[in-house]
Amino acid sequence: MTSDITQDFFMDLAEIAARESLPFFRQPIAVDNKKEAYFDPVTQADRQTEAALRQFIRLHRPQDSILGEEVGLDKGENDYTWVIDPIDGTRSFICGVPVWGTLVGLLHQTRAIAGMMAQPFTGELFYANETGSFFTRHGGDGCYLPVQKLKTRTMTNLEEATLFTTAPAMFDERTRNAFQKLEKCVKLTRFGTDCYAPAMLAAGFVDLVVEAGVQPYDIIALIPIIEQAGGVVTCWDGTPAEKAGNIIAAATPQLHARALEILQTFFL
Amino acid sequence: MTSDITQDFFMDLAEIAARESLPFFRQPIAVDNKKEAYFDPVTQADRQTEAALRQFIRLHRPQDSILGEEVGLDKGENDYTWVIDPIDGTRSFICGVPVWGTLVGLLHQTRAIAGMMAQPFTGELFYANETGSFFTRHGGDGCYLPVQKLKTRTMTNLEEATLFTTAPAMFDERTRNAFQKLEKCVKLTRFGTDCYAPAMLAAGFVDLVVEAGVQPYDIIALIPIIEQAGGVVTCWDGTPAEKAGNIIAAATPQLHARALEILQTFFL
Repeated sequence: MTSDITQDFFMDLAEIAARESLPFFRQPIAVDNKKEAYFDPVTQADRQTEAALRQFIRLHRPQDSILGEEVGLDKGENDYTWVIDPIDGTRSFICGVPVWGTLVGLLHQTRAIAGMMAQPFTGELFYANETGSFFTRHGGDGCYLPVQKLKTRTMTNLEEATLFTTAPAMFDERTRNAFQKLEKCVKLTRFGTDCYAPAMLAAGFVDLVVEAGVQPYDIIALIPIIEQAGGVVTCWDGTPAEKAGNIIAAATPQLHARALEILQTFFL
Repeated sequence: MTSDITQDFFMDLAEIAARESLPFFRQPIAVDNKKEAYFDPVTQADRQTEAALRQFIRLHRPQDSILGEEVGLDKGENDYTWVIDPIDGTRSFICGVPVWGTLVGLLHQTRAIAGMMAQPFTGELFYANETGSFFTRHGGDGCYLPVQKLKTRTMTNLEEATLFTTAPAMFDERTRNAFQKLEKCVKLTRFGTDCYAPAMLAAGFVDLVVEAGVQPYDIIALIPIIEQAGGVVTCWDGTPAEKAGNIIAAATPQLHARALEILQTFFL
């Protein structure tokens, strides 16, 4: 067994995600609330997609651990752990807006080494392994179009940068203050994209992504996609992004350093 | 000449929009700023798409007026005016996120009677004429999938509703206060969708869309799509949405009335 996950393996995972999630997309669907404190929706689409992805991974990588958003940890026998968010952006999913995605990442010990973000409605697949960060899309005939290598933009000026985050509501008062300081420095701020923004950062069309209070399954899969494209992603205190929590991703190390400096007023 | 615009006419417009805009999408593109006061981007994709749509409409409806975001008004000889936003959501466009769309609406005197929202990257087409509000999408073979009739959700409870808006930055202090009052009443608020949210309202997956300071070309095309699907769309003071400005769209008349009551604290 090697840790190098092939393009075909990601394509198989993306096919499974599409098969399980799309029949529920833009259909009337029961939405359950996972949390008492606020609205944290989950649907049959989340549960069914995670179950099918787990089954496939278990079959092909029987010794690895699997951690999923809906089911939790299934402990394996080696140092590899698959981390699954079957539908990252369930709020977008239930609203019919195709900026949700299926996230599957692979940890070796505590380090993210491979991952994918698949968007079944648009047929897009972003993935990374030890050889780079890549993009492809289903063509008209059901086959994938030629694979393109992803490369972040060479943006170093904060004043020219485009900043993305999911929703104002994800911030508490202290993190909101730090975020708003950063927002005042950049050229353009956009909201509402979940996993789509980090994918666009890797593709070179977004320069900064800042999120607060994210879970490991929200970010692990995206770390290799960002890093292998030339980007930098960490927690707001500069520690590895695999820890999750408050996250900042940037197109270049210079931009990351400048944005981090502003966000770290959070710790003062 | 009749005012009833056929499905084929909208499909032709959507083809033109795709042909002109997609070659620029997710490519390095020069972004100009239209306003001095803030960042209001425009690209060659906006200009080229509007020019091609104008040319097609001029050819097939030579007596109608045409008003476009980038070029302005071309005065015709009758009571019909086409209103074009070649790329509604240029900010999303330049960030690679496919929630922008091409909007083409038709006014008879001051009333919106037909319109379309096309999303070229996903191949989606939402349109309305005197016979109803409809959705179709490019299938794998380049043909359109069977057309579906759009119908808003039968949502009347504000506490169960999903609310969309484009960006917190679109509100000034007074409109933000009113919006935040409404936000506190609903189940879920989402940001960042431009013309995609009204389309999802017509399709039955979003219940309320609230925007501030919009231009006629941002809303005219969407009015028939919302109304023919059973929704209600007006300005915040209850006057016709064709005037543009501050806009509220709702899935049902009851929900519209309840949300309007809250937003109208704006006028106190």
